[in-house]
Amino acid sequence: MTLARRAFAEALGTGLLVTVVVGSGIMAQRLSDDTGLRLLENSVATAAGLAVLILLLGPVSGAHFNPVITLVDWALSRHADGRTVAVYLLAQTGGAIGGAVLADLMFGLPAVTIAAHHRTGADLWLGEVVATAGLVALVFALARQGRAAAAPAAAPAAVGAYIGAAYWFTSSTSFANPAVTVGRAFTDTFAGIAPSSVPGFVAAQFVGGALGAVLVLTLYPTGESRARRS
Amino acid sequence: MTLARRAFAEALGTGLLVTVVVGSGIMAQRLSDDTGLRLLENSVATAAGLAVLILLLGPVSGAHFNPVITLVDWALSRHADGRTVAVYLLAQTGGAIGGAVLADLMFGLPAVTIAAHHRTGADLWLGEVVATAGLVALVFALARQGRAAAAPAAAPAAVGAYIGAAYWFTSSTSFANPAVTVGRAFTDTFAGIAPSSVPGFVAAQFVGGALGAVLVLTLYPTGESRARRS
Amino acid sequence: MTLARRAFAEALGTGLLVTVVVGSGIMAQRLSDDTGLRLLENSVATAAGLAVLILLLGPVSGAHFNPVITLVDWALSRHADGRTVAVYLLAQTGGAIGGAVLADLMFGLPAVTIAAHHRTGADLWLGEVVATAGLVALVFALARQGRAAAAPAAAPAAVGAYIGAAYWFTSSTSFANPAVTVGRAFTDTFAGIAPSSVPGFVAAQFVGGALGAVLVLTLYPTGESRARRS
Amino acid sequence: MTLARRAFAEALGTGLLVTVVVGSGIMAQRLSDDTGLRLLENSVATAAGLAVLILLLGPVSGAHFNPVITLVDWALSRHADGRTVAVYLLAQTGGAIGGAVLADLMFGLPAVTIAAHHRTGADLWLGEVVATAGLVALVFALARQGRAAAAPAAAPAAVGAYIGAAYWFTSSTSFANPAVTVGRAFTDTFAGIAPSSVPGFVAAQFVGGALGAVLVLTLYPTGESRARRS
Repeated sequence: MTLARRAFAEALGTGLLVTVVVGSGIMAQRLSDDTGLRLLENSVATAAGLAVLILLLGPVSGAHFNPVITLVDWALSRHADGRTVAVYLLAQTGGAIGGAVLADLMFGLPAVTIAAHHRTGADLWLGEVVATAGLVALVFALARQGRAAAAPAAAPAAVGAYIGAAYWFTSSTSFANPAVTVGRAFTDTFAGIAPSSVPGFVAAQFVGGALGAVLVLTLYPTGESRARRS
Repeated sequence: MTLARRAFAEALGTGLLVTVVVGSGIMAQRLSDDTGLRLLENSVATAAGLAVLILLLGPVSGAHFNPVITLVDWALSRHADGRTVAVYLLAQTGGAIGGAVLADLMFGLPAVTIAAHHRTGADLWLGEVVATAGLVALVFALARQGRAAAAPAAAPAAVGAYIGAAYWFTSSTSFANPAVTVGRAFTDTFAGIAPSSVPGFVAAQFVGGALGAVLVLTLYPTGESRARRS
Repeated sequence: MTLARRAFAEALGTGLLVTVVVGSGIMAQRLSDDTGLRLLENSVATAAGLAVLILLLGPVSGAHFNPVITLVDWALSRHADGRTVAVYLLAQTGGAIGGAVLADLMFGLPAVTIAAHHRTGADLWLGEVVATAGLVALVFALARQGRAAAAPAAAPAAVGAYIGAAYWFTSSTSFANPAVTVGRAFTDTFAGIAPSSVPGFVAAQFVGGALGAVLVLTLYPTGESRARRS
Repeated sequence: MTLARRAFAEALGTGLLVTVVVGSGIMAQRLSDDTGLRLLENSVATAAGLAVLILLLGPVSGAHFNPVITLVDWALSRHADGRTVAVYLLAQTGGAIGGAVLADLMFGLPAVTIAAHHRTGADLWLGEVVATAGLVALVFALARQGRAAAAPAAAPAAVGAYIGAAYWFTSSTSFANPAVTVGRAFTDTFAGIAPSSVPGFVAAQFVGGALGAVLVLTLYPTGESRARRS
């Protein structure tokens, strides 16, 4: 695959992931009264949508859709060079913002509104550390289990199911993704996050990513380490 | 397979898909008060039902159940001749209307009532473009990934999961199918669409189908292109 | 497998299926107010539980759990003799009654209470015809698709998903099983059915079973016909 | 695998399972009013989270996460020695308590609060017997079906789906795990259990485990008996 095509896949996949998260949040907010029911609708749609996006784009770019995944992949495997990593990160972040705009436009809202929903505090940051550590551990553990296990075929559904569950068991509803976090600052809707809350979330996500990498190296010290989620 | 049997499978599958969509919509409308909860019930039933129908009928007809899929398949692969395409489209549309009638009869309603639910506007049309582009991209990307990937076995569940998610992340609740759209005009219930709103939806779906085909050719420029969703 | 062990598996599986249906119905009735939400809880639990039971017992008895499946299997394949069929039917019906008793006891109710919930009328009977025809078509179509398709591994989840969807798209909430229908007459709870309504449901189920068999012979005229749902 | 690494996997997996159960219970309690809806949210998150944890850690430790599974495995296969069993049980119990603490901290609660929710009575104990018997039967039946069946690849999702369903069809919401039961005594939230109720639940779980082992030996008298859930 050319780097351009892989970058396109990362931008498209991260963008559509944000569209799914933001769009289903808007729909849930408009149609349901109970906040928990809204989150159930939002989380089920996200779990299904994320699994499908990984299945769709995995063979093109590896379906990272997440700077933490790209950086841990680089650290563990060194298969990629620095330029590829930089291109991936830019594509993911740009795509994420575009995905929020697309969701807003589909629902008849201004293309960009800056989120006013503050999400801050040690409890939420701990939630992001846990959420991201679990995501990184899952992705790279499945990659290291290799073809002998059921893992490769199960990966798209497993990652979707993980995020769907993590909406509920973490206090932060599991953003677990710096690019998606930035994208979600550009929409003042159910899934939005105020820009002033973004740095804390992103910092916690990188801490979680490092913790997840340590877990992988502890649990699966040998084996292929290149992230392949599909 | 004879063309007659394949046409029967397309009529049956498209019809039962409409029965699932309309029937679960009626049940949800009767039993739940919260509109979002109704859509959750409707979407979960549709996702499961669609996956099962693709599994059931895929080996007979390819389980298109959708004129956009049939036409993109024709454009990309040219495996089919024009007569087969025409038969598929007729079977899908006729089946869809029959499916709405069956749902109405099962729930003790008149066989046909014309829907009064207007669905129109640039935001909803953009929703249909996105929904259909995603569906086309998914179906043909999985077909082009080939047997080496996990894709073929995952396709029925993936297409069901996609539509289940798209109920939520698109503003239009993702009709994404001209035949199903026509069928849903024949029932004045939760899933209905007023006849005057049909042309706009169908036009948006064809635009989305073309966009989806471009995405497939960009992401997977080579490979088998015949739609095989099971 | 000895016939005794297979009969035990059929009694156990049909019984636990009724326990899942009735038990989750009681729990939903106690904890939720909205009728649709109750049915959502009931249907999701049933879909998951049925898939698991087929996976658990399929290699022992074929996991019919349903007189209609056993009789259509007999009609299509003639692999079984009449005595085996009779034993299966007795095991399924006895198991189903035992399963209702177990659910009642787990929830602190009298072991047996006769259901007072009347379910009758042409619309509901049509629902049972459709539900059972679809179930039979699915089970035997997957069996006839053979190992080349994704079908065998997908069958447990597919049958569970089908029943989960059919709770919603049929007006009768898809009993689709004479043994389970009899069992559900022995509990006056959410999933109960008044004894006077049982004959109409069972008759509709046999009509649906015959229709389903015709569909299978039309769609898949050749191939192995023995029901193997796991 | 070294025993230390396997013990770490058991502690981590059991701990995170409790984090998922307790954390999603807190979130549901905070966001939803209807008790059934809370349980739906709790059960869906648990089903998805448990499946993912089995997939993540199965190749390391077998993903028991449950003293009953470890002891039945020991009784049926004798592959493990007594010391390994003791280490597993300690790791599971310690991990479970840690998982409750992590959930509390993520949601801004004191690290430990002793649960005040009494869960006692013959009906609930019968629920635990049924829940644990079913879990043990499922895990070891899938292990004994061997590679010829679809079982091994399906096991993580099947065990998750089973527990998700058992939240609903058993009166006790299916703890089915002595270590998790102990852990859930350390949090006074939705999923908590008062310490005075723990012995009754644990006793019922061991009875259920023995019953489940008898079921496995009856249904699958031969074959490999080592628990492999992934």
